[in-house]
Amino acid sequence: MSGYFITFEGGEGAGKTTQISLLAQYLSSKSYDIVTTREPGGTAGAEAIRHVLLSGQVQQYGPLVEALLFTAARADHVSEVIMPALQKGKVVLCDRFIDSTRVYQGLNDRISSSILSILECIALNGIMPHLTFLLDIPAAYGMERAKVRRKQAEMIDYFEKDNLDIQEQRRQTFLQLAKQEPHRFRVIDATSSVEVIAQKIKNICHQVFLDQRL
Amino acid sequence: MSGYFITFEGGEGAGKTTQISLLAQYLSSKSYDIVTTREPGGTAGAEAIRHVLLSGQVQQYGPLVEALLFTAARADHVSEVIMPALQKGKVVLCDRFIDSTRVYQGLNDRISSSILSILECIALNGIMPHLTFLLDIPAAYGMERAKVRRKQAEMIDYFEKDNLDIQEQRRQTFLQLAKQEPHRFRVIDATSSVEVIAQKIKNICHQVFLDQRL
Repeated sequence: MSGYFITFEGGEGAGKTTQISLLAQYLSSKSYDIVTTREPGGTAGAEAIRHVLLSGQVQQYGPLVEALLFTAARADHVSEVIMPALQKGKVVLCDRFIDSTRVYQGLNDRISSSILSILECIALNGIMPHLTFLLDIPAAYGMERAKVRRKQAEMIDYFEKDNLDIQEQRRQTFLQLAKQEPHRFRVIDATSSVEVIAQKIKNICHQVFLDQRL
Repeated sequence: MSGYFITFEGGEGAGKTTQISLLAQYLSSKSYDIVTTREPGGTAGAEAIRHVLLSGQVQQYGPLVEALLFTAARADHVSEVIMPALQKGKVVLCDRFIDSTRVYQGLNDRISSSILSILECIALNGIMPHLTFLLDIPAAYGMERAKVRRKQAEMIDYFEKDNLDIQEQRRQTFLQLAKQEPHRFRVIDATSSVEVIAQKIKNICHQVFLDQRL
């Protein structure tokens, strides 16, 4: 498996989508084959599951069912998109992945960490992100940005409705995960300008894998 | 937990729905509180998952994703319907349960039995059917019956489309499961008339739990 797998994590309004798009453009300009994707989703099958989860039409799912649905969507995504792309040597950029599940489903022991670990392992089927950018932003700041975006797109999804306290707890949990796996994670201050963040991300990509390859 | 949990298993056209309905009537006439339910489904949340699975709109799900979706639906069903009913002392009659997953997802090692066991355990959360009726019918016979029903209802679901060989393999796998757990399973010859089958089921219920309770 010669590809490279990069995930972007962080709370609402951290700018993940923008940065993925900028990095994809940059890497394409360097002649890399890029696949950009997202979770939950990334395949027709996973999108169907995402719809059930995020539309809010079924509000009563408990945390275990949520985690199982995310696992099903991820297993589909891994086997249909990520694994084949990596096997062809492509660079995969994914908006949210295992760390979001660890944070969103695992917070406050909503479900046991051992069950989460088992499900993660089943879905991953042996793959793991090589590099994870955590776009870190204070919850209040991120929520403001998300609000603007929602207004523009006239949309709101299930998880964005959660309150500021929970968002800040999630932020702290993301930061803990980053500390536990310093080789995989790079924490980026996402209060900087889009351009500054994009430059940092490029620099890290060069340092971590581009310069090794070119 | 003072309730009693009965599942009905078997291939297409074995008459599970009819027999559940007859047993429910009989037990109600004996003043038992009955909950009849089915898998996949049984809750609004699980029905939404059932729809994604059985509509055939997403044909490309692999066996692992299928198993995870069934697990998510089951976890919802167990926590929202089965567990609360059993805690209130009710008798739960369920159309398909864990054995269908073992047979449909586990056949021919479509996914590893250890993963299936882990998922089963996660969804069950400590409950287990007290009694399982396996309505056994030769595949060819059952398929004929299912065909008639489909014509009546103008419907066809994803799993009914499978061919006769696979249906017969599933039948044999159900029979093996019954042999492995003789205390839980009762195998019923489902080629008999509706009345004969219903009478056998009543007799077994009396022998196994009704006469102990009354």
